[in-house]
Amino acid sequence: MPEAILTDLYQLTMAAGYFAAGKVQEKATFELFVRQLPPQRNYLIASGIQQAVAYLESFCFSDEEIAYVRGLPQLRHASPDFFDYLRQLRFTGDVFAVAEGTPIFPGEPILTVRAPIIEAQIPETYLLSMISFQTLVATKASRVVHAAAGRPVVDFGTRRAHSPQAGALAARAAYVGGCVGTSNVLAGMRYGIPVFGTAAHSWTQAFSSEQESFRQLQQLLGEHTVLLIDTYDTLRGARLAASIGRPLWGVRLDSGDLASLSRQVRAILDQAGLQDVKIMASGDLNEYKIQQLVAAQAPVDLFGVGTDLATSLDAPGLSAVYKLVELRTSAGVRFTAKLSDHKATYGAPKQVFRFADHDVIGCSWECLSCGETSEALLRPLMLSGKLVDDSVGDLRRAQERVRKALAKLPAELLSLEVSSRPWPVNLSQELLEINRKIRDSHQGEGA
Amino acid sequence: MPEAILTDLYQLTMAAGYFAAGKVQEKATFELFVRQLPPQRNYLIASGIQQAVAYLESFCFSDEEIAYVRGLPQLRHASPDFFDYLRQLRFTGDVFAVAEGTPIFPGEPILTVRAPIIEAQIPETYLLSMISFQTLVATKASRVVHAAAGRPVVDFGTRRAHSPQAGALAARAAYVGGCVGTSNVLAGMRYGIPVFGTAAHSWTQAFSSEQESFRQLQQLLGEHTVLLIDTYDTLRGARLAASIGRPLWGVRLDSGDLASLSRQVRAILDQAGLQDVKIMASGDLNEYKIQQLVAAQAPVDLFGVGTDLATSLDAPGLSAVYKLVELRTSAGVRFTAKLSDHKATYGAPKQVFRFADHDVIGCSWECLSCGETSEALLRPLMLSGKLVDDSVGDLRRAQERVRKALAKLPAELLSLEVSSRPWPVNLSQELLEINRKIRDSHQGEGA
Repeated sequence: MPEAILTDLYQLTMAAGYFAAGKVQEKATFELFVRQLPPQRNYLIASGIQQAVAYLESFCFSDEEIAYVRGLPQLRHASPDFFDYLRQLRFTGDVFAVAEGTPIFPGEPILTVRAPIIEAQIPETYLLSMISFQTLVATKASRVVHAAAGRPVVDFGTRRAHSPQAGALAARAAYVGGCVGTSNVLAGMRYGIPVFGTAAHSWTQAFSSEQESFRQLQQLLGEHTVLLIDTYDTLRGARLAASIGRPLWGVRLDSGDLASLSRQVRAILDQAGLQDVKIMASGDLNEYKIQQLVAAQAPVDLFGVGTDLATSLDAPGLSAVYKLVELRTSAGVRFTAKLSDHKATYGAPKQVFRFADHDVIGCSWECLSCGETSEALLRPLMLSGKLVDDSVGDLRRAQERVRKALAKLPAELLSLEVSSRPWPVNLSQELLEINRKIRDSHQGEGA
Repeated sequence: MPEAILTDLYQLTMAAGYFAAGKVQEKATFELFVRQLPPQRNYLIASGIQQAVAYLESFCFSDEEIAYVRGLPQLRHASPDFFDYLRQLRFTGDVFAVAEGTPIFPGEPILTVRAPIIEAQIPETYLLSMISFQTLVATKASRVVHAAAGRPVVDFGTRRAHSPQAGALAARAAYVGGCVGTSNVLAGMRYGIPVFGTAAHSWTQAFSSEQESFRQLQQLLGEHTVLLIDTYDTLRGARLAASIGRPLWGVRLDSGDLASLSRQVRAILDQAGLQDVKIMASGDLNEYKIQQLVAAQAPVDLFGVGTDLATSLDAPGLSAVYKLVELRTSAGVRFTAKLSDHKATYGAPKQVFRFADHDVIGCSWECLSCGETSEALLRPLMLSGKLVDDSVGDLRRAQERVRKALAKLPAELLSLEVSSRPWPVNLSQELLEINRKIRDSHQGEGA
């Protein structure tokens, strides 16, 4: 899978321009952050850091890619030296990031890249897409898991994800966010996530009778058997499952009124002495419907969530951006910001300090009660192009981090509705002062 | 990129079950279709067929994948022969599909797979995800392009797509739907789509003055130069661009009130004698905002659309399903359907007949005024595992197909709002009769 070329063309025209302007050695610092929370969200769970780093570690252009780029009209005036430069280009910079599974808030850098400007510029597109997608799904998963109030949630979303590849990444992020596993086999193999799944409606249809299909599945799966009982008629399916009996892990409902059906199915199973047989529910579920089922005390033991989870259906877009905040040239250090209406950003490299009841975004060199009362969230992940933190792929630890961090947030931020008291994120005096100066200098220039 | 294993676990447990039940030779027909139109949509544009076929052509499991699957608890009871079978498994079946870019409606098969049951079952997850995602984006693109009323639209969405890989596929589907090109370089290389892009805000920030950044870009890009003028102050940026003058293809606005700013910028450019210099607009655009800008006669010549397009933001999920409709066993042919409440499906392989003012879904062997007055939409794409239609990757033809087909639909279906008169889709008498019999036979069984 070619990846360096998986970028926006303007990254390459800018790269050619930086090269032509003699800026190859200038060191840029870019920060990736979210402008604002998506609808119905009180926090975000940072995710996708592992794939971001893997991309930077293997960053390079193939000859075929360079030949293609060279043939583009926009790069007709670029010098042959630029393409030689591109051919040998690797990522040699530093990366700082919050740990996978950290709750983050608007304006807080999730990831900071400090590298020679071309190396830092080209990855923008890939990093934004990878981190914002997984962050959306990890966040959604944490909401669904919270709504399930202790009942396990499994990701079933690949078939509705935005491409099969997105499905595997969604499975990963859903696990970080608190799901117990996924139906996605590739994600199981690649990320070590538990995989779940037994049979679909087509299985039932493929046999001349529902009864035969149930018996055949039981023969294959033994104690792992989960019978999907709604292919023809849910209650009839439940009675059939009860008559077949053990070994039987559970039954699955995938349509109809799940609150009412789950109660009737529970009664049928209990009457047959199958009190330990579980009921799984799936079918266009999301955190709101699960919260209702839980509130109605529907006897559902396990939830499967698909479309809503893998697409973050109610908030499928994240306003993540990647902004230049510092440039180190032979002339010195310059902090940079964008001053556009509604889209202004703050210059200077930053650190996020998490206190018990608020965050402070300061300059990266500040030390705001470090240690005792606050935690600095951005940690070094790559230095001079080399990974310096082996724990980046530890998803169990990331999942645990989410659980612990959310438990520390005020309960109202865990509500499915938008809280009237958002988590306070303040800016340090030094950061504000630096940005006042940046703004003044540009107003002076324009006057 | 492993792909056969990019599936739901239940496909593999069912495969093991079909194998154990001696059903390997049974030939299944599955149909991929959409249950209902997403919000605000009057039609869907079928897309992703090329990737679906490419997946089936290269379908196979690696030894590593088989070893992983073999170790899963759910497959503990599967026979060693099953894993040998999996190792040699290739797709040898037939595929029928509508042509890429065809408008389709609920219930109409987009793709039909007829193959030995295991070969037909395992691809479900991949096919659903690939086709539904690209269909969503191609549909969204067609709406955006319609709203732009002749002004070109470029896809800028990769950074907000659900993974970088989804971004490349979104670029492809957006082109099918009518966009003139994309910012995604990989999509340009892989699919032959025109690529667009010049510079970001970081380019402007990377120079000590906006003026220097503009001059440097002009030097590199010549007649392709597009100056992004809103980094600090849009009107000041416009005056600067005007003072720099030709060669200059255009300027880009990415923030603020685009209707008002585009008029002021147009006036600044015109006053400087730059009547031919174009204005491009971007920044959280969608079909609704573009329609407003066009209605307000904002002098925008070209639109760049990102998040909304690449995520199909207002309709990010598609209720696509893949259902078993026929099984051929040694005992004969059996048509199958799912009878669940709200999720019932129609059995028997189908064909879609498009007439001038309605569609009829009939059985695949029916001939409903073929030729003269209707077109049969499903055509053979693969036979016995081999591609039989080389035009599947011809995106220009697909784009042209969209344009012509939409021009034939009633104008109200092209509206951005839901039409009160949906396109009529009828079922043939024979199809209805077959399904009455399927339902009767199951009611008899349950009685």
